[in-house]
Parts: sequence; structure tokens; C-alpha cells
Amino acid sequence: MKLQLALDTVDLDGAKVLLDDLHGLVDLAEIGTPFVYREGLRAVTTIARAYPELDIVADLKIIDAGEYEAGLAFEAGADIVTVLGVAHDSTIRGVIDQARAWGKQVMADLIAAKDVLQRADELDAMGVDYLCVHTATDLQAHGQDPLDALRRVQPVLRRARIAVAGGVTPALMKDIVPQHPDIVIVGSFITRHDAPRHAAQRIRASFQ
Amino acid sequence: MKLQLALDTVDLDGAKVLLDDLHGLVDLAEIGTPFVYREGLRAVTTIARAYPELDIVADLKIIDAGEYEAGLAFEAGADIVTVLGVAHDSTIRGVIDQARAWGKQVMADLIAAKDVLQRADELDAMGVDYLCVHTATDLQAHGQDPLDALRRVQPVLRRARIAVAGGVTPALMKDIVPQHPDIVIVGSFITRHDAPRHAAQRIRASFQ
Repeated sequence: MKLQLALDTVDLDGAKVLLDDLHGLVDLAEIGTPFVYREGLRAVTTIARAYPELDIVADLKIIDAGEYEAGLAFEAGADIVTVLGVAHDSTIRGVIDQARAWGKQVMADLIAAKDVLQRADELDAMGVDYLCVHTATDLQAHGQDPLDALRRVQPVLRRARIAVAGGVTPALMKDIVPQHPDIVIVGSFITRHDAPRHAAQRIRASFQ
Repeated sequence: MKLQLALDTVDLDGAKVLLDDLHGLVDLAEIGTPFVYREGLRAVTTIARAYPELDIVADLKIIDAGEYEAGLAFEAGADIVTVLGVAHDSTIRGVIDQARAWGKQVMADLIAAKDVLQRADELDAMGVDYLCVHTATDLQAHGQDPLDALRRVQPVLRRARIAVAGGVTPALMKDIVPQHPDIVIVGSFITRHDAPRHAAQRIRASFQ
């Protein structure tokens, strides 16, 4: 089980302060969608160079021009790029083809997918490397979490690994850990905590 | 009928060269999704300041954190922000609320929506300002265009205006014009043309 830190509400300087503070506790650094909006893909390049020990996820949530947009992410230094599971199959395939050409990886995000199980099955067959079951931020306020989707999707996967995202806290980790996802994605619980290192240690402590 | 220029495969300097060349022919400048990835929202700010006569569309294709991400776009100087029609209703509402707070507007992009008619009806009821019927770049290679969706969606709209995007050329304009969309979005036919001003003039000529 790996810990992916979602960097969303930060700028470049804030991201570095966090990543320095969290040294040794994080496996993947996600340049979150609003972080990309704010800084552009130079954020990927800067963080990739400064933290070569981390895998860098460019959370572009691609929904069109798959090959072209994935190429921008890998050229900038990303190890993994995200595509929306609700995108057309041809877009997903374009992202996968580009990832193969670069020797990099694809994470398909199931956010807002209508039939999560069916789409997970299709995306697995298409060859995405990771599937992310993801409760939207805008649904977390209504008490939703990704646990049910994680439990349902995991048994249908044959090749893809699974990631889980959306309001992950130590309390939720108690139910997530028995499902053994490959990647746990944590954002605001760590990034908005008064003591981010302590928060990350609490998440990691639950891995055992 | 207004002409929106989609700036996708350019950087800031290339965008300015195009917009200078196209002076007087374009009503809205769209900072396209890959343009935002490449440059960040400073592209919105720079183009908005340099071309105050144009309305600026930030094509973020928001799918989560609607209020927060729309706020980034409006703060950067956008007049219109895009949200994906496939996003959750709570995300759409967050984008609309933010737009109202700024006195700005929302365009919902129907790309990859399963039931285009039903979603158009719902988005119209929620209060988006524009609905964009949009054939994905990755489907245009398979001969698809947005004309059928335009014809079907337009009659169901009560308040929202309609925009059309996806492989628009002068040939397609012959069938689009009789539908009287409010905005026609053109990208590569102009931006990749040897003579962009001539290309834009051909599109505008079809408006009459």
C-alpha cells in the first residue's frame, strides 16, 4: 500500500514546504487539478526535479484529446497521468498509447461514472494501470465516501491496480485497509492539518 | 451568432499572434484545456488584459470542487467558465453559485454525456447560461460531428443559450447556421490554417 499526497489548494512554494515536511512518508506526489490550473504543468516539472524519489501524478482528468494531453503531462515529467473514466473509449486508448510510448502509466478516475462496476470492468480490459474509486469533493459534504465503491470494484479487476480517493481520514482508513488498495490518496486531511507530518504519520500507522 | 476562437495547441506568444491577426473577427477567446495545462490560469489573465474587447472563456471542464475551481477562473479574469455536463449536480450548482457571486457566466459542456437530451434539460433547469454540444476531438477522427446533437438539444432549451463545438469548418457551417446557435466555437480550422484570418473570414461569411 502506497500513500499518494494530493496537492490541490497549494502553490509551488506551499507544495515544497509540505513535501519537505513529509519527507519519507509519501510515495507519490499528485499535482492536483486546481494546482495545474494555477501553475500549469511547470508544477509537474518543478516537483519532479526537486523530489526524484517520488512518483509524480499529473491529475489532468483528461476527457478529450487523450494522446495529445497525456503527451503534455509526460513531457513535463509525470510518471502517471489521470484520465476520466467517463471519457470516450477512444480518448482512454489515446492516453494509454501515449503512456506506453513514454514507458509511463495511466490512472483512470471513476469520479461521476454512472455505472462504476461496468466502467471499471471496461477500463481494466482496455489496459489502464490504475483505477481510482473517487468520491467527489462536492459529494463528501453530503456524507458520501469511496468505501462502498472500493469494495465493489476490487473483485472485478483482473489486471489494473486500485487507488482510493475522496475524504480519506484515519477513521476511514480502518475500513479501507482490509480492502488492501494499492494506493491511498490523501489530500486535505494532511495538507490542511495544523501538523501535516503528524497527520501523515497517523495515515501511515494505519497501513500495518 | 458569435464566434468563439478555441486556443488549444498554442502558448501565450502564439495566442497573441493569432488574436492580433484575427482582430475584429472573433467575439470570444477560449483559453483551451491544454492551453491552461501548459501555461496555467495566467494565460486567462494575460489574454483578458491584452484583449479587453473579447469575452474570455476559461475551458477548465470542471468535474469537481465546482465553487473553488470556478473561483480560480473568475479571479484570473474569465468571463465564462466551463463545467462538464457529466459532473455531479452539486458541482454544477457550485460553479453556478460562484458565477452569480462574480456576475459572470457558466457554460456546461455536454462532451461524453450519455443521454444528451436529458442532461441538457437538467442543466437548463439548474440555470447554466450556455450549453455546449461538443463532439470530442477523439471522435471527429471517426467522422462524427455535433450537428445532430445541436438539432436535438436546441428545442428542449428554455433559458440557456446554445454553443456548438467540435470540428467546425465552413462546410459544416452550412448546416449549423440554419439552427442559429448563439455561439459557434472554432479551433483548428482557424488556428492551424496557413492563413488564419482568411479562415476566420470564411467562417464569418457563413453567418449571413
